[in-house]
Amino acid sequence: MRRKLLGVTVTLLLFASSAAALHRKDRSPSQTSTRTLVERLGYPRDAKLLIVHADDLGVAHSVNSAAIKALETGLVTSGSIMVPCPWLPEIAAYARSHPEADLGLHLTLTSEWSTYRWGPVLSKDRAPSLLDSSGYLYSSENEAAAHMDLKEVEAEIRAQIARARALGIQPTHLDSHMGTLYQSKALFEILVRVARENKLPFRISQDWFSRAQFMPAVLGPDEVVLDRTISIEPNVAPEDWSKFYTDEIKSLQPGVTDMIVHLAFADEETKGITFGHPEWGAEWRQRDFNFVTSDAFRKLLKENNVKLITWREIGKLIGKTSH
Amino acid sequence: MRRKLLGVTVTLLLFASSAAALHRKDRSPSQTSTRTLVERLGYPRDAKLLIVHADDLGVAHSVNSAAIKALETGLVTSGSIMVPCPWLPEIAAYARSHPEADLGLHLTLTSEWSTYRWGPVLSKDRAPSLLDSSGYLYSSENEAAAHMDLKEVEAEIRAQIARARALGIQPTHLDSHMGTLYQSKALFEILVRVARENKLPFRISQDWFSRAQFMPAVLGPDEVVLDRTISIEPNVAPEDWSKFYTDEIKSLQPGVTDMIVHLAFADEETKGITFGHPEWGAEWRQRDFNFVTSDAFRKLLKENNVKLITWREIGKLIGKTSH
Repeated sequence: MRRKLLGVTVTLLLFASSAAALHRKDRSPSQTSTRTLVERLGYPRDAKLLIVHADDLGVAHSVNSAAIKALETGLVTSGSIMVPCPWLPEIAAYARSHPEADLGLHLTLTSEWSTYRWGPVLSKDRAPSLLDSSGYLYSSENEAAAHMDLKEVEAEIRAQIARARALGIQPTHLDSHMGTLYQSKALFEILVRVARENKLPFRISQDWFSRAQFMPAVLGPDEVVLDRTISIEPNVAPEDWSKFYTDEIKSLQPGVTDMIVHLAFADEETKGITFGHPEWGAEWRQRDFNFVTSDAFRKLLKENNVKLITWREIGKLIGKTSH
Repeated sequence: MRRKLLGVTVTLLLFASSAAALHRKDRSPSQTSTRTLVERLGYPRDAKLLIVHADDLGVAHSVNSAAIKALETGLVTSGSIMVPCPWLPEIAAYARSHPEADLGLHLTLTSEWSTYRWGPVLSKDRAPSLLDSSGYLYSSENEAAAHMDLKEVEAEIRAQIARARALGIQPTHLDSHMGTLYQSKALFEILVRVARENKLPFRISQDWFSRAQFMPAVLGPDEVVLDRTISIEPNVAPEDWSKFYTDEIKSLQPGVTDMIVHLAFADEETKGITFGHPEWGAEWRQRDFNFVTSDAFRKLLKENNVKLITWREIGKLIGKTSH
């Protein structure tokens, strides 16, 4: 996930404490249970649970390498894979040889870089509305959301799930690259419907509801909603990277938080892909990698009693109502 | 181009001197003119003309970077682009900003690596026979040649040319990745037909005819046939790389020779793509880059009176019969 939705998310984070009470009122009927998500997961009500999630696996060799290295430190617990991207076979091989890895699908309806692009998994004839004039997926989530036919979107994300499974990936969760599937109620309904049918949890967080008010009504009693999301944004200066994450962990509230990071090495490949785009660029991803694999992060989690969890644990709640 | 055809080529090269006379007899009627190709290009009959050609542009950022750097030394004169590959937009941008660059299309019907793969330009529904069971192009030229429907092949290579033109590439020539379009008479006829219609020269060399005897009959009076090909092969030890090319240049005969090289840096991206495959792998491509951009190569060309030319010059002969 990148850009727009994260823009929404960070704004929410700024108002997180005041918004918390509001969100409780906004929750769908299924979320009004007195049992919190933390309790449903078997932890005490005051537990601080954290998913450290690497987005964009499959997009590049550098991203795959950095994510695998980070997963193997144990400090990054989860990741999600972009099925239409050319490095899918490399991360699929990792998924097959590491069936315990917590890997989901980063459902992809955009191709956002200028030097390096990809198309859909579906035959283009079956999803013409997903393509821009150059024959690739749209560059932005706004353009994509404005032009895509909903039936073609649904067919494409089903095709992405099918291709992942055909390559031996057993996804633990779903989310949406650049938040495209969170851009409208109609798109969100597709994500929810496909996730339900596949009995998979998907990225959704209470702190999104005040800016995407259509969301609660789409959710049913079986959907699991995380409590909040942490995602760094371009307004953080590079030298403040560690401080941002440190402050977030130190002030972490009880509940389940999804910390979304974008990992890669600042090598020639990543520089080539993100050319002219410092936001979510090579140095950004290297800084994320450096922080989440650091001893400082490990120590911080311990000192603040933060327990790392995965989407696999969340997935076990699917099919069990929250009451 | 890689592998099989080059296997043919090097075998031919071993017999190049004895084969030269034979090939002259084998030439198609159009090639029986007393004017040699060198003379038709406006050079004295004893001129030694060399195209130094980088294959596989568009496949990777490292390949694009190395090829662009090598083209800008002037020692590599030409290159060809793989249209279905994800780094096409990067090399297309270079082509648009360098309209003088001698860039052709490396028509691509295979996707040969294991970690990193691509599909066709055509909608998959229109070219199902081009895809293997995982939905990408076949891994080898043999599998591709055995399974591809000829109409779908022709439609796909037309689509590759159309996409290249849509992105502002004005190709100067055509050739075939891994030699797939040279694997049978029927495939070769498609290459020749499409090249003719586009008024483009294509890679074809007299020294291939003894191993691909169907070729001369397919050629018409307007086709331009180069005299020979140089392409290094796996039987050359890494420490003998310079010696191989040096010996080839020192013994170069009059005529037009196409020296095919595979350029990239031996960086993480190239190592990731060519993982487990030292042949045409990262170190191979770095060695090719090192040699063709070296002062030693420049000096060697000068000392041996080798004149570098491009496919653009060859293309000017198209439409003019050889008589």
